[in-house]
Amino acid sequence: MSDRREATVWPVAEAAAIGKVAEIYSDIRATKNIDFVPNLWRVLATNPDQLELVWTRLKALMHPKAAGRESRLDPLTREIIALAVSATNGCAYCVNSHTTAVLKLGLDHEALGEVLGIVGLFNTTNALADGYQVEPDILPPI
Amino acid sequence: MSDRREATVWPVAEAAAIGKVAEIYSDIRATKNIDFVPNLWRVLATNPDQLELVWTRLKALMHPKAAGRESRLDPLTREIIALAVSATNGCAYCVNSHTTAVLKLGLDHEALGEVLGIVGLFNTTNALADGYQVEPDILPPI
Amino acid sequence: MSDRREATVWPVAEAAAIGKVAEIYSDIRATKNIDFVPNLWRVLATNPDQLELVWTRLKALMHPKAAGRESRLDPLTREIIALAVSATNGCAYCVNSHTTAVLKLGLDHEALGEVLGIVGLFNTTNALADGYQVEPDILPPI
Amino acid sequence: MSDRREATVWPVAEAAAIGKVAEIYSDIRATKNIDFVPNLWRVLATNPDQLELVWTRLKALMHPKAAGRESRLDPLTREIIALAVSATNGCAYCVNSHTTAVLKLGLDHEALGEVLGIVGLFNTTNALADGYQVEPDILPPI
Amino acid sequence: MSDRREATVWPVAEAAAIGKVAEIYSDIRATKNIDFVPNLWRVLATNPDQLELVWTRLKALMHPKAAGRESRLDPLTREIIALAVSATNGCAYCVNSHTTAVLKLGLDHEALGEVLGIVGLFNTTNALADGYQVEPDILPPI
Amino acid sequence: MSDRREATVWPVAEAAAIGKVAEIYSDIRATKNIDFVPNLWRVLATNPDQLELVWTRLKALMHPKAAGRESRLDPLTREIIALAVSATNGCAYCVNSHTTAVLKLGLDHEALGEVLGIVGLFNTTNALADGYQVEPDILPPI
Repeated sequence: MSDRREATVWPVAEAAAIGKVAEIYSDIRATKNIDFVPNLWRVLATNPDQLELVWTRLKALMHPKAAGRESRLDPLTREIIALAVSATNGCAYCVNSHTTAVLKLGLDHEALGEVLGIVGLFNTTNALADGYQVEPDILPPI
Repeated sequence: MSDRREATVWPVAEAAAIGKVAEIYSDIRATKNIDFVPNLWRVLATNPDQLELVWTRLKALMHPKAAGRESRLDPLTREIIALAVSATNGCAYCVNSHTTAVLKLGLDHEALGEVLGIVGLFNTTNALADGYQVEPDILPPI
Repeated sequence: MSDRREATVWPVAEAAAIGKVAEIYSDIRATKNIDFVPNLWRVLATNPDQLELVWTRLKALMHPKAAGRESRLDPLTREIIALAVSATNGCAYCVNSHTTAVLKLGLDHEALGEVLGIVGLFNTTNALADGYQVEPDILPPI
Repeated sequence: MSDRREATVWPVAEAAAIGKVAEIYSDIRATKNIDFVPNLWRVLATNPDQLELVWTRLKALMHPKAAGRESRLDPLTREIIALAVSATNGCAYCVNSHTTAVLKLGLDHEALGEVLGIVGLFNTTNALADGYQVEPDILPPI
Repeated sequence: MSDRREATVWPVAEAAAIGKVAEIYSDIRATKNIDFVPNLWRVLATNPDQLELVWTRLKALMHPKAAGRESRLDPLTREIIALAVSATNGCAYCVNSHTTAVLKLGLDHEALGEVLGIVGLFNTTNALADGYQVEPDILPPI
Repeated sequence: MSDRREATVWPVAEAAAIGKVAEIYSDIRATKNIDFVPNLWRVLATNPDQLELVWTRLKALMHPKAAGRESRLDPLTREIIALAVSATNGCAYCVNSHTTAVLKLGLDHEALGEVLGIVGLFNTTNALADGYQVEPDILPPI
């Protein structure tokens, strides 16, 4: 054991989960079709209410069919949005996780380059629009 | 004239554009199929090299066919990435502009709500992953 | 010694501190009631004026009694603010340090989960308010 | 009516709300003890599922008693966290709203100055820790 | 008077300043060689300790000669750093103020375009480096 | 080989580069006067168009002479802007790279401390101006 815990709290191991946490772990594995519970969820499980609130919202938005909802966006578009947000925020865990997801959904390395290129570009234009204090264009209503 | 200039610099009016700036203005109107030059570009035109560098890059990534390139992403996905970045950065001009673009490309208000919901969700999970110092999952290579 | 220095500069070791730096190191240990000088301060000591400016402000705001000031906030609330800012900025060193501080001040893992849950939530609503370009509500003065 | 809509979408007026939206509007007014529905919620109502997901999570975290949950933090601390996140993100709507909330909960202008001073301070130390690439301190487990 | 206060608090008018606040106002006007006290300082004056802490630090770093310190950077470089930070953060008040300062110090609109171009570029490469999870290069010590 | 790739994609090795990528690698080594291609560029090379777009823009703005352009800013000022943006964004790779660059260009550790001190200061004032919702000052045109 190292002197320095890496995560802030001790993640709740899958074998140690009981009650609501065990149910959500099981739902995560089934919904995401994976055979382990990713670190973020095991860490959130240190506060079971928190785990439930975030998972309910994530399931509704990212796995709508499993949540009994209709989505207007396809799964790859949803994961691309997650990756765009994560790269803009510089969240290492999140970039790692959503990159895996977009590659699994069929995006290849060249197309991933295009996604990140667009993310990079709009970090430029955002800084320029803010930096030059550009006024919104007056546009006709759509 | 007001005491307070809104943008930092005086945007270059379309009627005043000459040389390289006039050519790029014309390319912007044609490529984007609009009959005016948006404020961001008129502001960038105060430094014509800057205008050219940003427009070249944006045209290549956002209007690939016009730039003689292939894209692996469809136009709506590209604009959704731009909107995700802009909302995450809180850039008002940019959100305004890319919202108009996604609506023009056929996204309706309900689907826009879904996009922004996903943007909001991953601003949550990003903060949680950073806040809890979650370690990346060890994943098999894809 | 590795080829790659981890911090940008060589931190000033406690044994090597003289003059103003030694005095501030001593004040840091006494004020924070710890027996070592954390890395951030040893790095700031490479520019002693910098060290003094930041320490003076931090001591006044975070250890007001030691600075001869009154505070309207209790110590845990002050550290929770520091943690909220750090998680929102995604600053790894800072999250690590302020998490230790809030745990030391008695917050347990479940309550920490609640703090980070609120931090996560308002990263959502911030992105939604910016993304939808929501107008401020007209409120009566308080 | 101006040419330029300020928000992206037409907020759902209170008089126009039906079904699930009307119920949530009513819950917002009762839970927050106000006689109007703030703009953010009326905008989210353009996608009723979205409205429900965000309101459920916000109610659970910010109004725990009304949601039948226990909270370990007092109401003012919760709103101070929201304000710290919003000021760090530079979200104008959010800062406006949470400032009103902390003042309502009894924070006066001087104490508000202390909160914002701490927010400002840790935006400094965050930038310094990232800028100097400071290594986390090796701390004993708590 | 409008229903909606624009700033959170009532700024302390120059005519109403007494004691420490009056002294600092006077120092701000003299140090910056202007005949009014900018809004940020009049707002900070609602908490005089806060005003003093921020002004002391800003004076030391931005007006070193007046603070009896030596600086290794020239005044324009210092203001360019302030502008780069402000555009990256998207802080409207700050961009407005530091743009005025760099123009006063002699930067013309074309060179301002170059500064903002570099700010925009590195917002791109930052997002790309984070998005691609690029490892630091192993470099020889300097 | 570890189970966990560090970067998202396999960087294109210098020995494996052909065609446009080989040309740009060569241009990077010559323009930057280094004997290796930094990781960021080898990662971008997984999408050669992307590599070309970012390198063209970076070369024009950061190595203007090599690109046949005039710059109004000196090389150190340009790298200081890059460092200010990177520290504000908390991008570890970027801070590492631009710190090396400013040290190579002659900034010593004390002056580096001054740069980062100013970066830190304006992350404070940005948060304060946003947090207090400070109105822009009405200034005479420059």
